Amino acid sequence: MADQADEAVPRLVDVQGLAQALAEFAREREWDQFHSPKNLVMALTGEVGELSEVFQWMTEEASTGAATDPKTAQAVRDEMADVLLYLVRLADVLGVDLNAAVQAKLRTNATKYPADKARGSSAKYTEM
Amino acid sequence: MADQADEAVPRLVDVQGLAQALAEFAREREWDQFHSPKNLVMALTGEVGELSEVFQWMTEEASTGAATDPKTAQAVRDEMADVLLYLVRLADVLGVDLNAAVQAKLRTNATKYPADKARGSSAKYTEM
Amino acid sequence: MADQADEAVPRLVDVQGLAQALAEFAREREWDQFHSPKNLVMALTGEVGELSEVFQWMTEEASTGAATDPKTAQAVRDEMADVLLYLVRLADVLGVDLNAAVQAKLRTNATKYPADKARGSSAKYTEM
Amino acid sequence: MADQADEAVPRLVDVQGLAQALAEFAREREWDQFHSPKNLVMALTGEVGELSEVFQWMTEEASTGAATDPKTAQAVRDEMADVLLYLVRLADVLGVDLNAAVQAKLRTNATKYPADKARGSSAKYTEM
Repeated sequence: MADQADEAVPRLVDVQGLAQALAEFAREREWDQFHSPKNLVMALTGEVGELSEVFQWMTEEASTGAATDPKTAQAVRDEMADVLLYLVRLADVLGVDLNAAVQAKLRTNATKYPADKARGSSAKYTEM
Repeated sequence: MADQADEAVPRLVDVQGLAQALAEFAREREWDQFHSPKNLVMALTGEVGELSEVFQWMTEEASTGAATDPKTAQAVRDEMADVLLYLVRLADVLGVDLNAAVQAKLRTNATKYPADKARGSSAKYTEM
Repeated sequence: MADQADEAVPRLVDVQGLAQALAEFAREREWDQFHSPKNLVMALTGEVGELSEVFQWMTEEASTGAATDPKTAQAVRDEMADVLLYLVRLADVLGVDLNAAVQAKLRTNATKYPADKARGSSAKYTEM
Repeated sequence: MADQADEAVPRLVDVQGLAQALAEFAREREWDQFHSPKNLVMALTGEVGELSEVFQWMTEEASTGAATDPKTAQAVRDEMADVLLYLVRLADVLGVDLNAAVQAKLRTNATKYPADKARGSSAKYTEM
């Protein structure tokens, strides 16, 4: 039964509201012409670059407080939001179900990195 | 009343399930020691780089079908999932509420890019 | 003889002047403390992100004229310079000889992509 | 006299040999069709992503030895070479003189970051 299947695979990600808000935002501005997947991947790259700039001179220890530090908190939230905006817009334009993609990736990762083998190691699965 | 406030600000993003799954995944493998925000930003960068590689030689037109093309669909879903995994993990470690961050950014964008001024233009708000 | 060996392997890259200028620039400002390789990789990421932003909404065709278009030429040159600055600074701090690294990579690429097999194809060598 | 002008502006970067080698490599494989500036920026992004992956879980201290550590040295050199290959190829395709671009950028940086003001600070010039 569908209900049981739904219970068996809980929803980990729900970004439908955001996808719709972004689609409407683009439509009102006639931006669909610019939002090819290739272009959106480049825009996503730009936002990750801006996020990286916020963290580039911080020590690892300082980075743990970056979202509460008055000098960086706003930038951290803004750049993370921008990354998510473009990722969700990209998924919508491509027709990718992010929840399904994430579920599949988690299953793959669980196989690649069994807890007893990966414990305490940052090695890539190909090098373990 | 709280209920009315909740209705007024609909939830655009819900990634709590994923955040919890990732936290458990890391804890079981004793990976928290590697998951500083600075490190996670670099890991996010790596995944966006892999996503970029999938699209780098495609024409814009071809990119619109990248998620259904048998040669690229799996890679597209996998890399997008990886980007989301690290972004959500980063938000969790930093204590950033992605839904709130996104709502704030959408309000900012609506101010920066009024529909009648931004229509059909890809110019940055600072150049309009 | 050494001379013949030198002739046999022509120098493809010479960035010593820049490396020295950057080292002096950093020393005068007491910036060596910030210039760990890890931090410089993040700074490089940030600059590539800015370069990506210049090109993100351009068509491929428009991108061919980006360095002469009055609206983008300055930004293109500036961001490409920034990428090179951080790459050369990173090489200097790590003790990597970029000329030797490039020579080795070109030999590898010639083996991975024989002209008769790779002709007209953008496929990765693992997929040819 | 031209000679004196040349002495006054020493060459900081010479990548002509590499640019020519890459142009020939692409021509022999009929790859010019793929090497639009937009595409090359994405390829550059991909390589920076791979470089980032090498450093993502390293401490800053460990990163200082990344080019001599047997486990990472080869990857560090390879990924740095790849970044330079795509940057030089991009400059060649765009007609950008990297030496001139770098010289101009260094002059700008010297103005933005006067030694006595920037000493010991990682703040961006807009925040000093």
